[in-house]
Amino acid sequence: MARQSTISESPGGQAPIRVLVLGTGQMGSAMARLVLARPGLELAGACARRPGRAGMDLGRAIGLDRALGLPIVHDLEEALVRSRPRVALQATCSRLAEARDEIEILLRHGVRVITIAEEMACPAATDPVAAAALDRLARDHGAALLGTGINPGFVLDLLVITLTGVCAEVRSIRAERINDLSPYGPTVLENQGVGLSPEAFRAGLAEGRVVGHLGFRQSIGLIAGALGWTIDRIEERREPIVSTVRRETPCVTVEPGQVAGCRHTATAWRRGEPAITLVHPQQVRPELAGVGTGDRIEIDSSPPVRLSGSPEIPGGQGTAALAVNMIPHLLNAAPGLHTMADLPIPAARLGDARRWVLGGDRSAAPTEEAGQ
Amino acid sequence: MARQSTISESPGGQAPIRVLVLGTGQMGSAMARLVLARPGLELAGACARRPGRAGMDLGRAIGLDRALGLPIVHDLEEALVRSRPRVALQATCSRLAEARDEIEILLRHGVRVITIAEEMACPAATDPVAAAALDRLARDHGAALLGTGINPGFVLDLLVITLTGVCAEVRSIRAERINDLSPYGPTVLENQGVGLSPEAFRAGLAEGRVVGHLGFRQSIGLIAGALGWTIDRIEERREPIVSTVRRETPCVTVEPGQVAGCRHTATAWRRGEPAITLVHPQQVRPELAGVGTGDRIEIDSSPPVRLSGSPEIPGGQGTAALAVNMIPHLLNAAPGLHTMADLPIPAARLGDARRWVLGGDRSAAPTEEAGQ
Repeated sequence: MARQSTISESPGGQAPIRVLVLGTGQMGSAMARLVLARPGLELAGACARRPGRAGMDLGRAIGLDRALGLPIVHDLEEALVRSRPRVALQATCSRLAEARDEIEILLRHGVRVITIAEEMACPAATDPVAAAALDRLARDHGAALLGTGINPGFVLDLLVITLTGVCAEVRSIRAERINDLSPYGPTVLENQGVGLSPEAFRAGLAEGRVVGHLGFRQSIGLIAGALGWTIDRIEERREPIVSTVRRETPCVTVEPGQVAGCRHTATAWRRGEPAITLVHPQQVRPELAGVGTGDRIEIDSSPPVRLSGSPEIPGGQGTAALAVNMIPHLLNAAPGLHTMADLPIPAARLGDARRWVLGGDRSAAPTEEAGQ
Repeated sequence: MARQSTISESPGGQAPIRVLVLGTGQMGSAMARLVLARPGLELAGACARRPGRAGMDLGRAIGLDRALGLPIVHDLEEALVRSRPRVALQATCSRLAEARDEIEILLRHGVRVITIAEEMACPAATDPVAAAALDRLARDHGAALLGTGINPGFVLDLLVITLTGVCAEVRSIRAERINDLSPYGPTVLENQGVGLSPEAFRAGLAEGRVVGHLGFRQSIGLIAGALGWTIDRIEERREPIVSTVRRETPCVTVEPGQVAGCRHTATAWRRGEPAITLVHPQQVRPELAGVGTGDRIEIDSSPPVRLSGSPEIPGGQGTAALAVNMIPHLLNAAPGLHTMADLPIPAARLGDARRWVLGGDRSAAPTEEAGQ
């Protein structure tokens, strides 16, 4: 029976779900803090790619004012032995090729993996061979793998797909996310060309230093897959957002005439028409140029659907929460590679995380009140 | 592997999915037309509760300009023998008690059932014993059962739950749907008290003739279940929307001072605080009173989430499309009773419906182009 509507208890007799976090940067730290705060989950350890972090206490590293007695580990195999996790959250990279080694090690140990690497939101979009291999590896070891995040993974794909559920016909889709890069650090700002001259921006694009948004192909892959559309080609455009005003953040100052961000768009063509248009201009301090941030979805369909929100759903917080909220879904999923589009709808799985995991002994469990 | 992102074919060698429609009113007819239009589905028959419809050709009954050679059947057992359906779409009633007999007959025949009866969106909300019995019956016969619809089933619950997926904490939820009753017929208008004096509206409420929206308890049940909240009590308020202007539809004329609709709200209390507030004022010709229609969700959470759309997602069209789009999901689901909150996210399953059904032979299947 529909378990969400009937389970009101959590398996208090069961051991907490042990979670290993890969990456101790901004996103890894945010996830680790959420794991600590959620009853039924146990922060079992953390693994950092930077050797210099090894041995640091995890509590201090993720911004707590106390030690956790958990040293950060550099070697993943060692981290697995020490932490014996059931689930790993990967926040170390963006590309499939960079994420793959760690994921394979985790899957071989039967660990279920949730990654926020953008290309892993739909790995088949850029590398179907690698996606099939990861699917096979996960199945062989009774493990499961999911890529998630606010974008790709939610605003420009999952939410779009969900809204098409009320449509009998869909002609085309346009989705836009206008966000503020001000909270981000130097790596993100460099990827978007913030602070460059328009000429340097174009040179950076040509040389691959300016990349814009990573995720359009994954979002398009998820939408097209869910609707059964065959996409003929995808066109991407990256243009500098040249500022007319001075914009300042803790990391960068943009003078008038310099680049405040990247207006990145992607159009997916089907049967000679633009079927999916995704627009994602990212810049620092958009409000100084009179630009409001927000998310907007417009579906040209029967019936038509339009939904928008302003400001945008915060990216960093949303990604960390999604990854942690999806833990029970992934524990309940069949072995293999999953996407957000083939699992049950996401939800804030509040209270004791174990209550959402099927197969546990729920009979002797505490109530909501005891679980929180 | 994530099937939505990898399946690009449909099982042409397989027989179409035979669908029986229960109800030949506005909603049943809309669904029957969608089934006819969707490749891979076959409209196998229709069953009507009104004996007077028996024998009528289904094509004419659902508004086509041609006969389909399918007579409408009054007796459900006879309809099952004639149509041999794999799936039934029920559009005959709103209440669980009214829906149950037909559903039980269908489940006993191993037919998978999608119903738009409002109380079936979360039957455990009003009758957990009946919900458990239906779940058991479905399991015993390898069948499955789902309640869906635009509301309950989508705007004020599924969409809310999905949006909480990006939240680490949720303090409270407010969701509002302001819609236009003008397209609806006399039954719906009477249920909302349209055209009555304010005094007659209040008398109608007391006597149960004016009911307002049916679905708040189901939406609250779905949300609370998904978030793990225990609700202490639900308060509902139904107030007349007294018109200051003359409003006219094909079915009713509302003079100034008369009731144009019902402002129905529900508040779910948790731990002494209002946790979920649902607002659903329904009226004819809202634009004549300067009222804009729309859907709005506001989640007081970390991070905060707000999303809205105007006008509202059309209710009738959306409900019919959802029911048809969910057919593959329900065919892939485990036996038992399901809700929208525990199945994979809805999507416009365009093209050949069989491509979305797992377990079929997809190797010898036509491509998207051949499937449409």
